[in-house]
Amino acid sequence: MPVPPRAPRFVDLTAPAIAALPADTVAVLPLGAIEQHGPHLPVSTDFVIATEAAEAAVAAAAQRGHASVVLLEGLAYTKSDEHAWSPGTIWLSWDTLMRVLVDIGRSLQTSGITRLLFVNGHGGNSALGQVANRELRRRFGLQTFFAHLSLPADQGGTSSREDELGMGIHGGHGETSLMLHLRPDLVHLEHAGRRVPEALTAYRHIGFGKPVSFGWLSDDFGPDGYIGDATGADADAGKARFEAAVGTLVEVIEEAARFEVPRSSAP
Amino acid sequence: MPVPPRAPRFVDLTAPAIAALPADTVAVLPLGAIEQHGPHLPVSTDFVIATEAAEAAVAAAAQRGHASVVLLEGLAYTKSDEHAWSPGTIWLSWDTLMRVLVDIGRSLQTSGITRLLFVNGHGGNSALGQVANRELRRRFGLQTFFAHLSLPADQGGTSSREDELGMGIHGGHGETSLMLHLRPDLVHLEHAGRRVPEALTAYRHIGFGKPVSFGWLSDDFGPDGYIGDATGADADAGKARFEAAVGTLVEVIEEAARFEVPRSSAP
Amino acid sequence: MPVPPRAPRFVDLTAPAIAALPADTVAVLPLGAIEQHGPHLPVSTDFVIATEAAEAAVAAAAQRGHASVVLLEGLAYTKSDEHAWSPGTIWLSWDTLMRVLVDIGRSLQTSGITRLLFVNGHGGNSALGQVANRELRRRFGLQTFFAHLSLPADQGGTSSREDELGMGIHGGHGETSLMLHLRPDLVHLEHAGRRVPEALTAYRHIGFGKPVSFGWLSDDFGPDGYIGDATGADADAGKARFEAAVGTLVEVIEEAARFEVPRSSAP
Amino acid sequence: MPVPPRAPRFVDLTAPAIAALPADTVAVLPLGAIEQHGPHLPVSTDFVIATEAAEAAVAAAAQRGHASVVLLEGLAYTKSDEHAWSPGTIWLSWDTLMRVLVDIGRSLQTSGITRLLFVNGHGGNSALGQVANRELRRRFGLQTFFAHLSLPADQGGTSSREDELGMGIHGGHGETSLMLHLRPDLVHLEHAGRRVPEALTAYRHIGFGKPVSFGWLSDDFGPDGYIGDATGADADAGKARFEAAVGTLVEVIEEAARFEVPRSSAP
Amino acid sequence: MPVPPRAPRFVDLTAPAIAALPADTVAVLPLGAIEQHGPHLPVSTDFVIATEAAEAAVAAAAQRGHASVVLLEGLAYTKSDEHAWSPGTIWLSWDTLMRVLVDIGRSLQTSGITRLLFVNGHGGNSALGQVANRELRRRFGLQTFFAHLSLPADQGGTSSREDELGMGIHGGHGETSLMLHLRPDLVHLEHAGRRVPEALTAYRHIGFGKPVSFGWLSDDFGPDGYIGDATGADADAGKARFEAAVGTLVEVIEEAARFEVPRSSAP
Amino acid sequence: MPVPPRAPRFVDLTAPAIAALPADTVAVLPLGAIEQHGPHLPVSTDFVIATEAAEAAVAAAAQRGHASVVLLEGLAYTKSDEHAWSPGTIWLSWDTLMRVLVDIGRSLQTSGITRLLFVNGHGGNSALGQVANRELRRRFGLQTFFAHLSLPADQGGTSSREDELGMGIHGGHGETSLMLHLRPDLVHLEHAGRRVPEALTAYRHIGFGKPVSFGWLSDDFGPDGYIGDATGADADAGKARFEAAVGTLVEVIEEAARFEVPRSSAP
Repeated sequence: MPVPPRAPRFVDLTAPAIAALPADTVAVLPLGAIEQHGPHLPVSTDFVIATEAAEAAVAAAAQRGHASVVLLEGLAYTKSDEHAWSPGTIWLSWDTLMRVLVDIGRSLQTSGITRLLFVNGHGGNSALGQVANRELRRRFGLQTFFAHLSLPADQGGTSSREDELGMGIHGGHGETSLMLHLRPDLVHLEHAGRRVPEALTAYRHIGFGKPVSFGWLSDDFGPDGYIGDATGADADAGKARFEAAVGTLVEVIEEAARFEVPRSSAP
Repeated sequence: MPVPPRAPRFVDLTAPAIAALPADTVAVLPLGAIEQHGPHLPVSTDFVIATEAAEAAVAAAAQRGHASVVLLEGLAYTKSDEHAWSPGTIWLSWDTLMRVLVDIGRSLQTSGITRLLFVNGHGGNSALGQVANRELRRRFGLQTFFAHLSLPADQGGTSSREDELGMGIHGGHGETSLMLHLRPDLVHLEHAGRRVPEALTAYRHIGFGKPVSFGWLSDDFGPDGYIGDATGADADAGKARFEAAVGTLVEVIEEAARFEVPRSSAP
Repeated sequence: MPVPPRAPRFVDLTAPAIAALPADTVAVLPLGAIEQHGPHLPVSTDFVIATEAAEAAVAAAAQRGHASVVLLEGLAYTKSDEHAWSPGTIWLSWDTLMRVLVDIGRSLQTSGITRLLFVNGHGGNSALGQVANRELRRRFGLQTFFAHLSLPADQGGTSSREDELGMGIHGGHGETSLMLHLRPDLVHLEHAGRRVPEALTAYRHIGFGKPVSFGWLSDDFGPDGYIGDATGADADAGKARFEAAVGTLVEVIEEAARFEVPRSSAP
Repeated sequence: MPVPPRAPRFVDLTAPAIAALPADTVAVLPLGAIEQHGPHLPVSTDFVIATEAAEAAVAAAAQRGHASVVLLEGLAYTKSDEHAWSPGTIWLSWDTLMRVLVDIGRSLQTSGITRLLFVNGHGGNSALGQVANRELRRRFGLQTFFAHLSLPADQGGTSSREDELGMGIHGGHGETSLMLHLRPDLVHLEHAGRRVPEALTAYRHIGFGKPVSFGWLSDDFGPDGYIGDATGADADAGKARFEAAVGTLVEVIEEAARFEVPRSSAP
Repeated sequence: MPVPPRAPRFVDLTAPAIAALPADTVAVLPLGAIEQHGPHLPVSTDFVIATEAAEAAVAAAAQRGHASVVLLEGLAYTKSDEHAWSPGTIWLSWDTLMRVLVDIGRSLQTSGITRLLFVNGHGGNSALGQVANRELRRRFGLQTFFAHLSLPADQGGTSSREDELGMGIHGGHGETSLMLHLRPDLVHLEHAGRRVPEALTAYRHIGFGKPVSFGWLSDDFGPDGYIGDATGADADAGKARFEAAVGTLVEVIEEAARFEVPRSSAP
Repeated sequence: MPVPPRAPRFVDLTAPAIAALPADTVAVLPLGAIEQHGPHLPVSTDFVIATEAAEAAVAAAAQRGHASVVLLEGLAYTKSDEHAWSPGTIWLSWDTLMRVLVDIGRSLQTSGITRLLFVNGHGGNSALGQVANRELRRRFGLQTFFAHLSLPADQGGTSSREDELGMGIHGGHGETSLMLHLRPDLVHLEHAGRRVPEALTAYRHIGFGKPVSFGWLSDDFGPDGYIGDATGADADAGKARFEAAVGTLVEVIEEAARFEVPRSSAP
């Protein structure tokens, strides 16, 4: 098996080396979560997925050589307030996380970084990430980008299995398969079941991935804390999903490196 | 012309009457914006649209009688940081607006309200609204819902005109037509043009409504501040768009009134 | 009945029109409250009075033509912590409201506005309004002014009825009469009574409108939440009170438009 | 000269002694300011006046024996933002000072204190003091009172000299005379002049002590920073003013000790 | 007995006199605490000690004439969260105190002060004081210094008595002796005992003054709230301790006045 | 070479497994820093050292079996405001970091964790860590401990080389040797020199590790950003230093697991 290339890491560099990075370098910040993921997955699930994918994508992009890119140390503790009720969840409030992101943005500006790509592994970060996207653009002039490892089913993406009914959003078939590929030692497949709030399909407008969102906590749906169907998860499906996501991320990095906000045409 | 029914308003009631509202009453909070909308639309555009639609929908829903519903006084000043550079924009920072929403949620809890539906007329509020959706659910037990008047093109909706290329997101054909229907006296169609950043189509992943969002300010695209093509806007299209949105909102209100988070099935 | 002139509204204007306002334009911001007002008045009482008076005064001042003036969209939710205990009250904490006012001040500066007049309908806002008056002057260079619709009895004004003993400060004869004039459909006079904490007269220094203020909550005085004597309220008295207040406000607007802080004479 | 009685001080007591104070003890908190007071008065002027008066009043009230009373260590640094421009001013922002007052209120609750009387020597604290009055009442159950040493001319009191035209509000005849009585060693009468912004009288509604307040900074009126006429200040006038204020404060303390919020009469 | 020289006080000066202070003037800010000190000492203990020592040292340094120095009004209410449980403690939270120190630092910058020496009498302030030391250096360019009156036993100093086992850190022999010297009228020696958590010596790494600190509250060790052995305290020991501390502080002031951060040598 | 045992990691566990941890489990949180470390060391230096040492110590302690212990995901971005001026530094402000630590403490409480040990690799975190130690104890009942990997020379520890004069505090011989042991690939010894501000020895009271601390920024001493003498650093010295630190940490973990705050003896 060939040794995968190692991603160039911001934190491995000296200060003068960072000051000398090309002006259009894309800095990639993985956003994970440490939060309950049911009885079958470790609390690190989102963090593992985000950091592994970001690392693989940065390594591949660096090797292709079309973009200057560095990997930042990821954030493990993020906005998991929907899992606040559970042991194992370590969460930051919305304002704490925003302050962290603002402080990072201000620091990157001092480092001469002008392009920042969030790679997010936790759906609960998406909304605040959008807020940060703009805040860091406005205050520090950073051109910011926010990418999901794979768009969550409740935010326009697709579930891993059709019979999850678009509700495989937390500890379901997709995430479990990814973890069977990445860290099979941490998966307890014997505890994996099906927890799909099927009655949500009775609502036309309100629901995961529907036009009207609703404020939910993960124990609203039952005491087990996961939402989806983890039965039948397998490492091959996880591998395919992971590699597809990494392939997309490589393209995103390259696109971010050459992205310029275009002026509107005005005939 | 028949006089439209007047929406039942929270603020018209006395305190004892509010205390006596049915437990499943849906409180509807319009979220507008006061922000620059180019040279052809008033800065109130998003606020007018959100409040008019919410009012019409609440009135219709009340008349249908399938749900108990009250209209709250809407918020005119919201999160318009992408337009902070322009005269006419009156914007709250992300943390100010969150604090306002939290204070409102806490107050509604004291009033015995358990269901809160945001009706949003400004795309820039969507992300923070999601954060609030959960925060108010967790802290005050409110079952919260977040609805767009019409889903913005950059968030999964469709543009009003095909040749806006999915970029008719601010002051374009759709909003201008809506305002020609609602407040034609405030529209200066003679100043309306086409401002579409067409070169965004060159990016596969990054862009409005694409999987990777980017942090933008409205003057990134040019000095005029609107994004879309307002030429050819007309009141009839606006009327159709408005009535469709109101019709949907009526259904949303009724769905919100009977919504219960379902338990997951576990075979 | 002649149609009253419509007040020029900031929010009706386009961004370029706002940028072109005369430099000495007075922007008028009504401050209301949504808070319990006893069993006979709607929770909107202070908001209705402040916005109606501000609108009438701005319209009249604009028609007189001695000052450039625009009406801002008013704030419905303000600092009603003394009524926090009651259903129907939607209140912002002191720091939330201050942040809102600061954000508005910062935005007005970008709009080129240099004169801001608060028109306040809720006594509980007076103190914080003074704080904001100075904060916006210091940070954004705005020449700020703070006016009460009519000075509350507990802040140096007079009660509507002598036998309210200077305690007609919340839902009493004055406010009830004003509402009978402005929105008789919302007044439930059959529930109006007399709730005057007469024993306060036993204190020489401490009390409403006395040199030593005290921190009170509106349920300190009993469970009904109003303070004053609403019996005998009538629309004519309300009309007279309203027109007097509007007349004064017109003068205030004109004075604010030409106000310059004078240098001290130093002989 | 008889030695004046020493005021009982909270800080002189042990913790068990504080826990054993009578339930209706009035705790007195002087609020001063350290801020520029022109070329003739020390920056401590407001702090000296407030602490000296509070000390004398607490001592006298304790000696009379009609009330249990303790003096708290006063706050020297308060809200002097109108003098922020000047050397010598040490000021807390509005939110810092509010946080300090909230922390003190929370601590007094733990100490079993139920009555708190602010004795204020700086007009710029009045508004925030009102906010604190209510905040501490609501959150900690403290019965709060806010007294001015002598009501400032711009807040309904009277100036020391008639020809100050109601504008002797900062470093004028009254304060200078008080300091000549209390700390003549710190007064530089040779630098005292007249700095009265007489042109303010041209405004009917706007001005010091008029119904419409305005946001001012002390250098708006000129570079010398004081407002009033300090010429002719004398120690005898200061002594009379001081003793009158102390006499009133003694009555206020006794009234605060027996004060109960009365229920409204409802015939 | 010779009258001790009076310390030059910042607050005694006029604004112009403050503006004229030499550029290298050291401003000395005593940090006390108002907090329970057991049944034998007043809650002012730390405040008395810090302010008395700072005053004596500033007076002596001024008289020696080798440094320009002024005494600031000290802070009585500081960070006493370890005593929050007890009547008599008036404490600021960490963020309130930091905001106060930041506001003071910002104000001193306006006053032209460039050197600030904290003289701390309360061990619980040490950590936050270090944070402030740097914050004020970075934001306001102040050269800051943080000195303990005498280094607490749990922070590297020595206990007053050997048999306190390095745990005479709060109300023990040292502080009681100091108070017997400074304010014998406030000491209730009849209530003084020995409260030493001797079992702490069983731990090698964790403990007062050991390499690993631990988060403790003063009632963790028992209900009396003091830690040390106050029996046998005497005024002579207190006098010696006080004079030694003052002598050191005089040297510190002089060193602070001439301190320059040296450049590193680079051979 | 034997494979070192892997530390048991909190984040590898499922939520139910975390809920089932023994009540006296010690959770270990490494605190690193990402900050400039001169031209010869990576910006990750403190983070690498803290996480490597914590990992080794947790692994060893777990293998010994005298204590239940889990390793938390460490914090890379902490309080590096003294290096804010430099590219490469990513720092959180004091209040952001405190909020992060408070949020983590609150989350650990929900997880049933009662003992938290900070293992700190960055001297600039020490003070705030003390504040957090107490805050988390008071608010969440956590028994907290704060350990340095090795006590910094400016906080009572010893420098690695005597001729660093106690100033080898940032990027000097000690840290460089540690990194040569842990990550030799990241060390650029060819850029390592001597940067010792020797003139600090001229001050008796003020300085690194002296009784009076001073607020410094790392560029106060020159533009290179490191303080110490990195010449002659070698991997063997680093290995010895690392193993000693780990050995101590193992003892600290075991002590923390059995630590109980003792009651004071009261004869």
